[in-house]
Amino acid sequence: MNYRIDNLQYCNWSREIFEINHQAKLDAVHATICYHEDFDELQKNINTWNDYFRKNDDLIFLGKTSKDIEQAQLKNKTAIFYGLQNCSPIEDNIDYVETLKNQGVMFMQLTYNNQSLLATGCYEERDSGITRMGKEVIKEMNRVKMIIDMSHSAEFSTLEAIEISEEPIVVSHANPLFWHKGLRNKSDDILKALNDSGGMIGFSLYPHHLKDASNCSLQSFCQMIAETTKRISIKQIGIGSDLCIRHPDSIVEWMRNGTWTKTKDFGEGSASNAGFPPQPSWFEDARGFDNLEKGLQEVGFSVDETHDILGNNWYNFYRKFD
Amino acid sequence: MNYRIDNLQYCNWSREIFEINHQAKLDAVHATICYHEDFDELQKNINTWNDYFRKNDDLIFLGKTSKDIEQAQLKNKTAIFYGLQNCSPIEDNIDYVETLKNQGVMFMQLTYNNQSLLATGCYEERDSGITRMGKEVIKEMNRVKMIIDMSHSAEFSTLEAIEISEEPIVVSHANPLFWHKGLRNKSDDILKALNDSGGMIGFSLYPHHLKDASNCSLQSFCQMIAETTKRISIKQIGIGSDLCIRHPDSIVEWMRNGTWTKTKDFGEGSASNAGFPPQPSWFEDARGFDNLEKGLQEVGFSVDETHDILGNNWYNFYRKFD
Repeated sequence: MNYRIDNLQYCNWSREIFEINHQAKLDAVHATICYHEDFDELQKNINTWNDYFRKNDDLIFLGKTSKDIEQAQLKNKTAIFYGLQNCSPIEDNIDYVETLKNQGVMFMQLTYNNQSLLATGCYEERDSGITRMGKEVIKEMNRVKMIIDMSHSAEFSTLEAIEISEEPIVVSHANPLFWHKGLRNKSDDILKALNDSGGMIGFSLYPHHLKDASNCSLQSFCQMIAETTKRISIKQIGIGSDLCIRHPDSIVEWMRNGTWTKTKDFGEGSASNAGFPPQPSWFEDARGFDNLEKGLQEVGFSVDETHDILGNNWYNFYRKFD
Repeated sequence: MNYRIDNLQYCNWSREIFEINHQAKLDAVHATICYHEDFDELQKNINTWNDYFRKNDDLIFLGKTSKDIEQAQLKNKTAIFYGLQNCSPIEDNIDYVETLKNQGVMFMQLTYNNQSLLATGCYEERDSGITRMGKEVIKEMNRVKMIIDMSHSAEFSTLEAIEISEEPIVVSHANPLFWHKGLRNKSDDILKALNDSGGMIGFSLYPHHLKDASNCSLQSFCQMIAETTKRISIKQIGIGSDLCIRHPDSIVEWMRNGTWTKTKDFGEGSASNAGFPPQPSWFEDARGFDNLEKGLQEVGFSVDETHDILGNNWYNFYRKFD
């Protein structure tokens, strides 16, 4: 059995998006349900998702374990796995880790772009690694089987999270630094540490993470994946597209600025390129998985390897947290 | 006119405490109203204080400017100035700085013992200094004239806060490291930076900050103050007693552990010495200011210098934030 999994999307969710993901034959999507929200604000987002599930139960349902990925395929639906791009919902209360896991939160980033109570984000000038609370929270996430995601975290914090965690961790959506010097892309040291610890990286299709940005070619992207398999096992890579489609630009401004600053921050963009960048033509939405399937085979991956990269590896990784 | 000011207390507030502070002839007290609380939880503490003010209006009132210190002396009352030992009440929302200043919050520590969203606490293994949000919040605190307090912050964070802030900052309650190697006591570098920037340090009477702890002698304490004036101007020192009297030991456990850990942390204490330590016999409560007045003169301070140390310096510092 082969599975197709997009291990990171933050689209402007609607029936249209769920239909696109269905057409893309996605068995599972890791959906971001938080950037800056605290615990109470997250509850509102979960209520909104309950509404999506009620109104679109022919297309989606809440996934909690790898069995739900199997069920999704059997039922021709997409399992939605909740993930947080920030630890803000646990506030300073370690008990909320278990509360949120019980509500279906499968992934939590220890930081978004800034310093959090747990670790350092990739936009900070200095990186002090995992904090005292961070060490406690990693233990607790290991205990309740919530997956640690360091996609937006700084280098040393990421390496230290890998070292401290007794379970493998993920970089759900980023690319290797050797290919494109994006602030969020990951070093060879991180790829090696992920490899050695059984972790995963999901390749991102967000233009700021791509060589040549929106003009990145399918071939360049797939060759990057081939090159990456020299650094991390072909069984430990997948896709985390970071698709943010159908959002107005005000959303990317909120993602970057939240309520933490009175000075506008442009993140990976700039004053003259402040909005969401256009997706590459071969990955305008999740239906681009079909292009990835062809592209990967064209750069030399076998059919089985292609299936592993497009979902089986994520499926096998999820199984470790059942 | 001479003023007596205790620039840090966190007592188990009651009419008895307000009477003691009145007997101690304190014109002003900087009262801690937060250790771990978020914005909503702080509102409850402020409501509790409103109740204290209503029921004890013959003894205390809320102070907001240096004029209230003058009024306190004229009316034979104690002005209470609010301070936060943590930035937790502003959460990740910079707008709350102004909101809280308008509610009477005069002081805010950028961290308690742990890493915060703004800076590093003195208990962390590594210190990355002022964060991106921290830099924004310092600007905002400067703008609304809220005083930055680094009593519980780590070395580099403290030095960087002094450098970044356009207003002088304080260490409201700590002692110099040269006298006692407490984790919270401050280095000569910090004393020098405070001196050069117009900042203040308030000497603490909390036994974990004292040489010989609860057995510290009045003479040793006063000699330490004399020695400190070789490092920082005699016009930039005061008292921040850190009195925590009448609390059950469960409170110090909460101060140390909040809700951030499932492993018990003993802070400056230890498993065998987990509770509040006994106060030195000559400073069991604020009435010990009378002993300080004698002790300071016995080690050679003049009457005027003694008044400066016991309150006039704080009064002059407050005036800068009117």
